[in-house]
Amino acid sequence: MNDIEISQAATAAPITEIADQLGLSADQIEPYGAVKAKIKLPVAGEVGDSKLILVTSINPTPAGEGKSTVTVGLGDALKRRGKKVAIALREPSLGPVMGMKGGATGGGYAQVIPMEDINLHFTGDMHALTEAHDTLSALIDNHIQQGNELNIDPRQVTWKRVIDINDRALRQTVIGLGGRTSGVPRQDGFDITVASELMAILCLSKDLGDLKERIKRIVIGYTYDKEPVTVADLKVAGAITLLLKDAIKPNLVQTLEHTPAIIHGGPFANIAHGCNSVLATQTALKLADYAVTEGGFGADLGGEKFMDIKTPVLGKTPNAVVVVATVRALKYNGGVDKKSLETENLAALAAGSVNLKRHVQSMKRYGVPVLVAVNRFTTDTDAEIDQLLAYIKDELGVPAFDTTVWANGGGGALDLADAVVEATQQPSDFVPLYAPDDDLVTKMTKIVQDIYGGRDVELEPKAKRQLKTFVKHGWDKLPVCMAKTQYSLSDNAKQLGAPTDFTIHVREFVPKLGAGFIVALTGNVLTMPGLPKHPAALNMDIDADGTITGLF
Amino acid sequence: MNDIEISQAATAAPITEIADQLGLSADQIEPYGAVKAKIKLPVAGEVGDSKLILVTSINPTPAGEGKSTVTVGLGDALKRRGKKVAIALREPSLGPVMGMKGGATGGGYAQVIPMEDINLHFTGDMHALTEAHDTLSALIDNHIQQGNELNIDPRQVTWKRVIDINDRALRQTVIGLGGRTSGVPRQDGFDITVASELMAILCLSKDLGDLKERIKRIVIGYTYDKEPVTVADLKVAGAITLLLKDAIKPNLVQTLEHTPAIIHGGPFANIAHGCNSVLATQTALKLADYAVTEGGFGADLGGEKFMDIKTPVLGKTPNAVVVVATVRALKYNGGVDKKSLETENLAALAAGSVNLKRHVQSMKRYGVPVLVAVNRFTTDTDAEIDQLLAYIKDELGVPAFDTTVWANGGGGALDLADAVVEATQQPSDFVPLYAPDDDLVTKMTKIVQDIYGGRDVELEPKAKRQLKTFVKHGWDKLPVCMAKTQYSLSDNAKQLGAPTDFTIHVREFVPKLGAGFIVALTGNVLTMPGLPKHPAALNMDIDADGTITGLF
Repeated sequence: MNDIEISQAATAAPITEIADQLGLSADQIEPYGAVKAKIKLPVAGEVGDSKLILVTSINPTPAGEGKSTVTVGLGDALKRRGKKVAIALREPSLGPVMGMKGGATGGGYAQVIPMEDINLHFTGDMHALTEAHDTLSALIDNHIQQGNELNIDPRQVTWKRVIDINDRALRQTVIGLGGRTSGVPRQDGFDITVASELMAILCLSKDLGDLKERIKRIVIGYTYDKEPVTVADLKVAGAITLLLKDAIKPNLVQTLEHTPAIIHGGPFANIAHGCNSVLATQTALKLADYAVTEGGFGADLGGEKFMDIKTPVLGKTPNAVVVVATVRALKYNGGVDKKSLETENLAALAAGSVNLKRHVQSMKRYGVPVLVAVNRFTTDTDAEIDQLLAYIKDELGVPAFDTTVWANGGGGALDLADAVVEATQQPSDFVPLYAPDDDLVTKMTKIVQDIYGGRDVELEPKAKRQLKTFVKHGWDKLPVCMAKTQYSLSDNAKQLGAPTDFTIHVREFVPKLGAGFIVALTGNVLTMPGLPKHPAALNMDIDADGTITGLF
Repeated sequence: MNDIEISQAATAAPITEIADQLGLSADQIEPYGAVKAKIKLPVAGEVGDSKLILVTSINPTPAGEGKSTVTVGLGDALKRRGKKVAIALREPSLGPVMGMKGGATGGGYAQVIPMEDINLHFTGDMHALTEAHDTLSALIDNHIQQGNELNIDPRQVTWKRVIDINDRALRQTVIGLGGRTSGVPRQDGFDITVASELMAILCLSKDLGDLKERIKRIVIGYTYDKEPVTVADLKVAGAITLLLKDAIKPNLVQTLEHTPAIIHGGPFANIAHGCNSVLATQTALKLADYAVTEGGFGADLGGEKFMDIKTPVLGKTPNAVVVVATVRALKYNGGVDKKSLETENLAALAAGSVNLKRHVQSMKRYGVPVLVAVNRFTTDTDAEIDQLLAYIKDELGVPAFDTTVWANGGGGALDLADAVVEATQQPSDFVPLYAPDDDLVTKMTKIVQDIYGGRDVELEPKAKRQLKTFVKHGWDKLPVCMAKTQYSLSDNAKQLGAPTDFTIHVREFVPKLGAGFIVALTGNVLTMPGLPKHPAALNMDIDADGTITGLF
């Protein structure tokens, strides 16, 4: 059976029963149908001694790693061991679902359900973000249209528009054509919704009040005098916050094994911080003894940003980190062609394992126990698995586990779960990567050296010029959010394995004052994906009786 | 108290109780929080002898008519009289809410609640339509990008993009800029979501299967050889239908008096047919003895289209028509300036009453009992009300009632309700305006003469050329959907009252094969509104504790 067939064959428990596992009464949730709900805010309870487990991974490859699948499977395994557990995941973007094989709800027997709803409109959070973002866009253009009291330079509006669709034709547009009553002509473009600063903000807000204050601080562009213009200047923070009044509430669903899953927020892990919402993770910690969560892409992006951007807001650091790796992906890192991944190749596996080594070392650097989950594929040989497990234990000095959650659900990660429980009993000794008052270049240099294993950072002329204005505006001590390719530890997507002695080139900075960080753009970062030649949409169908096919 | 304060002060009944009034069990609905739900399809039951009441009005004016308010109040009054009743309304578009005083949920003590949810994201139907529409747009541009197998002429793509925001800057755009990997450059533009053909289709579909068949028939543009290209040709009807799997389900809420209200679908009443969904109206008829529904704008647009476009699909004609009028609006029609409407002016009232006369006559023409509701404002004088009621009874020969639903809820329309019940006991004798196989010009001529009170129809050169191709494609016998200004019976918005001897000029036709009608564009019809100088958004706010202000 494929993922949708497994999801459709499953019997979901009523969402009130899932809520009850977490001590939430029917009054404390807002059902969306029988098996989805929003959790009302504020959520009562304390984070206390609850354990936080971060699941991250090696650099993604076309071979597949299965980070979400392991996250779900680990949660199910902890539940099988009698623990009170909640999983906290990002919510998928609809756009990519129509393009390539989409979805971000785990796979096989380690899935969150109902996958067909979570991967489509879910509870409407993405649409609320799109609406809020584009309402702000319309209000900006209307301000310019109606006299431009704030003196906004139409050539310097940095607040683009968004849509939750892979639509390459909207990347670069000209708007405001058609004469005096139809706007002021200017260049513009659309990003995909998950790239909106509002998504990053939603995921870093502690409550509705904090959300509004952050929205006020968003810089939407600059005046003709090059002064920043904020949402507060436009006086529309109230309206934009109002549009997010429901989107800020975490969503509750369940795994195939009826483990509670809180799925909320999904910012990009390149131009944003790539983690589910602080409110979701905090809710999981308040309501369960074990909260299992993940960061986007590899440990160099989602992992680092979880540690350096999310935990200061969350006020809680992980008690354990699980790095997910696969034999296939490491062989790919070792130079094996995508088509030959199913053939045993111990030498390539050994060569590619340096990628895992780098990520394990960078996570260990934070002073938190690290474990490795080897997510087993059916084509992996015993010799390969044994070699990899031995390498991790002997060379990297961390516990490693053969997990089979796709095929066996929580039953495929019981040993991992036991080891995670044991690891979280250790006293935590979190070592931050940088100090809050380090300047931007210092912060970036520490990331490049300690996390990526590179040599240094080089600013291109535009970035250098921007840095000077940041000092003037007081933005030079903010956390930095590196926008780098996910495929390599360096800024060159083709450099697999564990490159060394490389320089990271910063092309441009993007201040995200609402989110509270400065994005450093390295290389070309695509913020609007395109559809492939044969989009997944062509295979999708729904019968007159509502049966869905072709959705993965 | 204003509308939102009244709404916030109200105590809504649990939605399961409202469902129970209609004989729906908890299993037959999908709750969206405690006081909103979707009704699962198919809805069991028969339309049988249930009575259908259409509420329509005179031409809208800046003075306000209150059609939705009367619809809600009449529903509440029928309930007070012990009838089993369901109201079927359109759902509001979010875009205009941020612009002018928005909302379409009635007013005062004749409101549907929770107005703050219904006027914002509600259950996500609008967003699902936006997503479905723009996914189709992206798939069209991607088809052209990836080799253009269907030979689509980029200059003749008629399927624009949509967004549920008043965004004048998106009316006319150039997309696909940025080079080879970012689409094919072409002129494009955005309409507001309610103008999407998908909205019209959703509102005319009998079930999920019918929805998909209609989507297949949508013409998205033409080939270089001027042949129509459909969604079926693109092979994506399944995916687009899938995105509407929940949006097709009618929404259930309640009035302040706990009368069930089914709010579903809201197409424009100019470029579309302006009525809530066939499924919503049919559901109201199946589950209640009295279904009270409305058409958009005046009887010349929403009323005519209800009769000629919606009822053939619904398979049921109204048992009574209520035309709403106000003293203020009729004085405005009689030449009184907007600022002087609160001063008694019997002469102007008499002069302007011809507008009401025209609408009453056109509705009587269908052979259905007609009644008039005079929606009283506090500034109306007794002399004005008496004169108007006497005119309606004596000159127009139909029953007329002084209603005060804004102030008194259902208690303000009890006499009207009694008369409506009596009227619906009369045997129905529906007389269609035109025969299905009349050609387009014949159909338009009958609308102009019998409904608008005009002389004839004139086709501009482009429309004439199109008519020839329609014959070739077999589209020349479809129902016609007139896109005309709502402010006048003629195609000149400044001609108030009841103009005669006028010609309607058809500039262009827009074939909507999925909806199953041909739109005839007369004059300039704006399908993307703009924001005013001081948008309503500037007054909106939400506190840290979730209290909303400034939303009307």
